[in-house]
Amino acid sequence: MTPPPLPPLPLEIPQITSYMNPVLAFALLEMAMENFKQFLFALSAAVTVGFVSIIFVLRWVFYFKEGLAWDGGLAEFNWHPVLVVTGFIFMQGIAIIVYRLPWTWKCSKLMMKFIHAGLNILAFIFAAISLVAVFDFHNSQKIPNMYSLHSWVGLAAVILYSLQLVLGVCIYLVPITPTYLRAAFMPLHIYSGLFIFTSVIATALMGITEKLIFGLKNPSYKDSPPEATFVNVLGVLIVIFGGIILWIATRPSWKRPSEQVLRSPPTNGGGSVGIKVSQQTDPIDPKGNGDARRRSGKLEDSGQVN
Amino acid sequence: MTPPPLPPLPLEIPQITSYMNPVLAFALLEMAMENFKQFLFALSAAVTVGFVSIIFVLRWVFYFKEGLAWDGGLAEFNWHPVLVVTGFIFMQGIAIIVYRLPWTWKCSKLMMKFIHAGLNILAFIFAAISLVAVFDFHNSQKIPNMYSLHSWVGLAAVILYSLQLVLGVCIYLVPITPTYLRAAFMPLHIYSGLFIFTSVIATALMGITEKLIFGLKNPSYKDSPPEATFVNVLGVLIVIFGGIILWIATRPSWKRPSEQVLRSPPTNGGGSVGIKVSQQTDPIDPKGNGDARRRSGKLEDSGQVN
Repeated sequence: MTPPPLPPLPLEIPQITSYMNPVLAFALLEMAMENFKQFLFALSAAVTVGFVSIIFVLRWVFYFKEGLAWDGGLAEFNWHPVLVVTGFIFMQGIAIIVYRLPWTWKCSKLMMKFIHAGLNILAFIFAAISLVAVFDFHNSQKIPNMYSLHSWVGLAAVILYSLQLVLGVCIYLVPITPTYLRAAFMPLHIYSGLFIFTSVIATALMGITEKLIFGLKNPSYKDSPPEATFVNVLGVLIVIFGGIILWIATRPSWKRPSEQVLRSPPTNGGGSVGIKVSQQTDPIDPKGNGDARRRSGKLEDSGQVN
Repeated sequence: MTPPPLPPLPLEIPQITSYMNPVLAFALLEMAMENFKQFLFALSAAVTVGFVSIIFVLRWVFYFKEGLAWDGGLAEFNWHPVLVVTGFIFMQGIAIIVYRLPWTWKCSKLMMKFIHAGLNILAFIFAAISLVAVFDFHNSQKIPNMYSLHSWVGLAAVILYSLQLVLGVCIYLVPITPTYLRAAFMPLHIYSGLFIFTSVIATALMGITEKLIFGLKNPSYKDSPPEATFVNVLGVLIVIFGGIILWIATRPSWKRPSEQVLRSPPTNGGGSVGIKVSQQTDPIDPKGNGDARRRSGKLEDSGQVN
């Protein structure tokens, strides 16, 4: 008796081939579904924590502080945390993981690159306006600029981010850039992106610390008034958001499959689902073994465990 | 004319085999040497920046502040930054990359595990004493404990670190733990280790911010006295140290080879150097392709670059 045909896959499983034992094929399918559920859980957690962070920073500004305005006063300063949390943290975080959303794998790589670059450019604009707000506020109030560690690390992060954007566009969106250069630069592009994102979060934590010390008098930060506790929770939420984004961005089994895998026609042999490993001709992974091994969702970066 | 025999390798190169074209073998050797030089450069940079950070924190405490003592006063508080920078940052950083030092690859994996665990336990002891110093100081001076974001994230990091230590020892040093559990837990162990390390650095930056605001009066932090600039530089050094450690820890080509590769006898065929890919029988990577691909030092996590 022949086994029933397998349902269409939400995730690509290159291990399942037409000549495979159907029991093994079902086991692999189950593993991929489990992996997909874990991805959805992590993504939902990131988006939820990110949105709650944005609500927290808005409530901080509107309920505990002076609201938003562009008047050289404290209400202008308040644009700084609002734009940083919304743009430089949340939007940058989503930009980092946008390739990993399985429902975008049917979109062309070029379109995903535009979305990745677009979100990052938007995040950069938010960060730039947030800097203008704080410099303008300092100048109006005769407060010195750039004296604190927060300002040093923050400005360095913004400068590195602009460099990352320019290099990213030149290398991955200008069509004439040779493939070997794109491949050689990719590890640095990934590392820099995650490093800058992490630095922005560390800078935000320093900013929260500064603002709670300077902004709270009678009762002061030490006396734990409701605002202090509320904003500390915002800080913890930002750390959790960063942690989930870094987890999603570094799971090998959640990576967007190579274009060769995504664009290959499916095989039509009896009981076949997905794509054969042998159809992969990725120049970076000519034998396709890396992609196949990663996608089991279990082996990942486990390395040697003896 | 047969080519001259190749010299012994400082790095394992599984791609080079006795049946390989000698020109290709030389090219691969050169690539591995280049990769080794890059590793040495990154390691030297990390150790140098780490030592300079320790010198900076000692100079801060002894030249700008009250020195070290255990008297319930500011000199007792000063143990806090000294022990955190020395133990919880520098020692933990070295513990993270200790498997990647190529000259330790001749040592047994078990001995390296003891060194990794030992350094982390030492770092934990430093962190614990640094907490005792600050709680003792606060209690003596009637300053509340645990009100700041710095204290929240810092205490969470210490608790997670202790959990990581206990789980790490139970899973990787207790001999009866089954291999599949070790493999399944490894991605989480690696991720948690890097996440905790990064959180500790973010906490240190908040701590520096707090201490410079509270500790500097006439001139204050805003007026950028020499101490403020000096300690800001310490903060930047800590960020750079963290960045280099994370770079070293996440390069696939700098990973310690699997035990099967390290313990295989070398082949004695004409012109052969290193180990054949086919000798690998790692249970995590039965075909050895991952290890072989990683070690080219060029492909790494470059992924799709089209």
